[in-house]
This record gives sequence, structure tokens and C-alpha cells, in this order.
Amino acid sequence: MNLIAITMGDPAGVGPEVALQAITRARDVKKGYIIFGSVEVINYYIKLLNIDMEMNILEDETGFNPDKINIINVVELKMEDFTFGQVSPICGDAAYKYIERAIDYALAGKVSAVVTGPINKEALNLAGHHYDGHTEIFAKLTDTKIYSMMLSGGPLKVAHVSTHTSLRNACDRVKKERVFEVINLANKTLKQMGYEEPIIAVAGLNPHAGESGLFGREEIEEISPAIEQAIAEGIKVQGPVPPDTVFLNAVKGQYDIVIAMYHDQGHIPLKLLGFDIGVNMTIGLPIIRTSVDHGTAFGKAGKGIASYKSMVEAMKMAELFLGK
Amino acid sequence: MNLIAITMGDPAGVGPEVALQAITRARDVKKGYIIFGSVEVINYYIKLLNIDMEMNILEDETGFNPDKINIINVVELKMEDFTFGQVSPICGDAAYKYIERAIDYALAGKVSAVVTGPINKEALNLAGHHYDGHTEIFAKLTDTKIYSMMLSGGPLKVAHVSTHTSLRNACDRVKKERVFEVINLANKTLKQMGYEEPIIAVAGLNPHAGESGLFGREEIEEISPAIEQAIAEGIKVQGPVPPDTVFLNAVKGQYDIVIAMYHDQGHIPLKLLGFDIGVNMTIGLPIIRTSVDHGTAFGKAGKGIASYKSMVEAMKMAELFLGK
Repeated sequence: MNLIAITMGDPAGVGPEVALQAITRARDVKKGYIIFGSVEVINYYIKLLNIDMEMNILEDETGFNPDKINIINVVELKMEDFTFGQVSPICGDAAYKYIERAIDYALAGKVSAVVTGPINKEALNLAGHHYDGHTEIFAKLTDTKIYSMMLSGGPLKVAHVSTHTSLRNACDRVKKERVFEVINLANKTLKQMGYEEPIIAVAGLNPHAGESGLFGREEIEEISPAIEQAIAEGIKVQGPVPPDTVFLNAVKGQYDIVIAMYHDQGHIPLKLLGFDIGVNMTIGLPIIRTSVDHGTAFGKAGKGIASYKSMVEAMKMAELFLGK
Repeated sequence: MNLIAITMGDPAGVGPEVALQAITRARDVKKGYIIFGSVEVINYYIKLLNIDMEMNILEDETGFNPDKINIINVVELKMEDFTFGQVSPICGDAAYKYIERAIDYALAGKVSAVVTGPINKEALNLAGHHYDGHTEIFAKLTDTKIYSMMLSGGPLKVAHVSTHTSLRNACDRVKKERVFEVINLANKTLKQMGYEEPIIAVAGLNPHAGESGLFGREEIEEISPAIEQAIAEGIKVQGPVPPDTVFLNAVKGQYDIVIAMYHDQGHIPLKLLGFDIGVNMTIGLPIIRTSVDHGTAFGKAGKGIASYKSMVEAMKMAELFLGK
């Protein structure tokens, strides 16, 4: 059986709950999950949610038991060490360590994929881990230079040329080489997911995809040359398509994935269409990594009221890559 | 009765058809419409669509007859002068003249609003009228300096800080004064439409609304001060809200309108939600102007197959402002 790591996320957020709920209650995910987290926090939710399944605290993956809630107690955390809904360096550090351990396991082949629960960036940084988010941690710890954030929600998949940077900076990052890289990564990823010949649309950067240079020249100087290179390499790719029509056409089935030029170009349509059922994944890594697409939802933490739909989708996406 | 001008748009596009269909077939629009266009083109569609109503060719608005298809023959255009679906300077010039005449009528108080059919920018420019579109023509001919494009589709209304310019330029245009102007215009416009105290959301420019300056400083230096000024003047306004959540919250009813920082920030969600039933209007003009939100759809012109839903919505929006 392929084992999959599931990191619990920030203990003060909804991550532990959605991981536990998804593992024990979702009918359409497999049984090979190991939580990388803290035993006491999971135990709190087992009681709160009246879950009738025992925990199996593992030393390592060899002790896995498919009939129990498998967990590696990466950080000894007591309930009195933190408060639900509050940013703290203790929780930021714990969240980081769950991820770090899961990546170690994935790189060593002990697990086949990592599914991540939501973390809080402020807590992460307070703990001295200076990253913008999961994507950057995974890139750094796996020594990956070329990667992209791919979001999937309902009928729409989007890979991003840039994400967590200012819009001005995002404009600067629209370069032929980078656009080609992301097209290429998207193509490879969709093939791994089972698409024989993925059809890829590349969005423009500017309104109306630049209107022949009238509203900006990036389409002419950077994006179109990247598309031509991709076509020359046999990839099925179209564009640059006007940003305000490409997503609708993708939803209608015209394209399998859209390459977005910046964070909000991709995030606006995705959040609008499927806010609580999206999946976030990092493509280009040597390991498979999927994630919920929501945050820690501090206001809902500790209460047993969080939705675990996005976590289930993230798990199913990871399983898709493993070809189960 | 308030009379309303309806410009036919580019004769080679679907504009004449949707104007005629909306006037004669939509049950929920009033009867005070005068087409500003060319008689032969409308006559072509009357025959094609078997419309059982006579034309009333007017010298001016005083000859209006509510039981007929009222039209001012602004440009004598013969069917052999143009080809459906083809860009031409003849059609670009005619489209411009319909608008020019309608604006004259509106400024003189002979009509109370102008509803515009779609034009083709290339044709317009070939005819020597160097504008990006309707918005710029209306601003110029009414000598208006402060205006904004407002789009409305389904449950969502959006006013734009900038529209037809490169994304880099759009970043430069996010200035406190301009952001305040658009908030103020949106507030006034929604009050005219009957909202007592409109609730306005201002989107950020950068991902996560800048994440406290980490991903850009426009939210701190320009957008927030504009919001504070608006609040000080008694406007109900919130933000800057992360661009990828503000539209979903607006759709859910949390806000009456969203102020978008650039063209695609507003256009992506609107097109995704209501592609063929949107309304485009210019706010800040001394006259009321609404428009279909689609283009000339050259591929469908001359065939009697165009959807006139967006035109009906544009007419109803104009009527809303007239308080009928």
C-alpha cells in the first residue's frame, strides 16, 4: 500500500480537525494516511467529535495499521501550550516541523505523497521560519528551482507564473523562459494525472491580452514566444487568451488547464467557483504535494464545525497521482 | 414619457438586431425607445425576423409614436455599402455618428438616457475616430474628467479605477485621489439607483491585499487613505479586501458594489458569472449611459441568431435610473 503523509497544520487552526475528519469519515479516500502532528491535539478532536477509532502512535511508517488513526507525534504539544484561534510561535514552529518531517519521509520514499493542512504565515515567521507559505518550504527543502502553484477547483485547473509577490513584481516576472517552464510543468503534471494530450490555455497579462500591443507588450515579447516554443516541442497550447474570457472557456471544457500570469488572475475565478472544495498543489517538486486551499480559519478552530471537503479533495488529488 | 436613445452600434455586428429585438420583443422594457441608426439595416432585420410592426422614421424626438419602431436615420447606409461580419471604416464612422447624435440629444434633454449597442474599435479607428471605446467617446463629448466604468452582472456590480491600459500602467494609476473618486462615484450612482446607504467594498491591488506591505505597498499608501477619506465623508466603505475573496463575498450579498483596481480584476469574475446578461455603464457623466457588455459578435451578425438578453438588461438599468 502507498502511504501518504498528512500534515496537521497549525494546531490552533482547523487543520487537525479536517485531517482527522477526512481520514475517519470520508468514504471515498483510501486508508493509507499517516498524520504528522501532535497526539494530544488529535486526541482532543477524537473526543470532541466522538470518533470511535483508536489512535496508533507510530515510531515510523513500518508500524502502520489500516484500521486505526495512524499518527507520528512529531512535536510533543500539550493543550495548555496554546489557545485555539491564536497566533503563536509555538504553533508556528510545530506546524513547520510536521512539514519538515513529512518531506523527509517523502524524499526517503517512506511515504508516496504529502497532503498539507493549513498553516498561519505570521506564526511561522514568529517561530523564525521565514517563508511565504508551504510552496516555498517545499521548494527549499527539496532543493527545487522550477516549480509552480497549481490550483484546482470544480472544473477549473490553473498553474501560476508567479504567486506571492506584488502585482508590479508579477508583471516583471512574465518572461518567456518562465512562461515556458510553467506550460511545460502543467503539461507534465496533467499527463501524470491521466490526460493523454492536455489542452493548455495561456492567459494574457494585460486587458484584452494587450490588444495587439495597445495595452502592453508582454503578450508580444514574452508570452507568445513561450507559446511558440511549447508548440514546437509538441505541447497542445493556445493563447495568449484575454484574461476575462479564458476562465469561462476553461469551465466550459475548452481547455484542461489555464496558465495564469499572476496570483489573483487565477485565484479570483477559482475562489468564485469553488471556495471550499479547492485543492492547491505544488508542481515541479520531486515529491507529490497537495493541500487544502483554505487557511487556518482560526474563528472556527476547536469547535468541531470546520468543513473537511477541501481536505478530502486534496487527498483524492494525491491519490490520483499515485494511480490508485 | 421619458424617451431613451438606443444606438444601433456597428452595422456589420449584432447591434442592430439586438436593439430591434429588445424593443419589439422584450415584455419588461418600456416603450420610449428611439433607435439612432440607419433605416435600411433595421429594415433588413424587420424582414429577416418577421417583425410585425412598422417603422416610424423621425426628424426629431417630437415625432415619437409609442406603437411603432421609432428611428432617427442618422446615417443613410445602404445594404450594399457593407458586409456583415467585416470591419470597415464606413461602419466605424456610422457607429460613431449614431453615438455622437445620441449624446447631442441627451445633453439637450431631448432624451433622458443613452443605451449603446456594440461597436468595433478597429472600425472606429479606421474611420479616424481614435478612441478605445464608448467610455472614452462619452467622456470626451460630454467634457467629463472624472468617470469610471461600472459593470453589473447578476448579483455583482463593479466600478473600475482603470480599464483599458496595460497592467503596469494600471498599477501606477492606483492613487489615493483616483480611488476616492471612484468610491464617491459608485456611492452616488447606487444612491441614484435606489440604494439608501450603499455598502462598498474596495479590493486591494496586490495578492492578499498586500499582506501588510509584504506583497506591495499600494494598499497602505494609496488605497487605505482613500477609504479613510470616504469614511470621513460618511460613505459606508470597507477594505482593502483581498482581491480573491471580495467578489465571492459581494455575490453572497455582503457588499452592494466592489471597487476594482484594474480591468481584469473586475472583468474576470463578472464574465465568469454572467457572460451574456451583463450591463456596462459609464458613471460620472452628466447623462445616463448604459450598454450591452458584449462585442459586435461579427460571426453571428446578419443571421437573426443573436441573444438580446444583455441589451434588455442595459435598457432596464437605464430605466432604473429614470425612476420609472
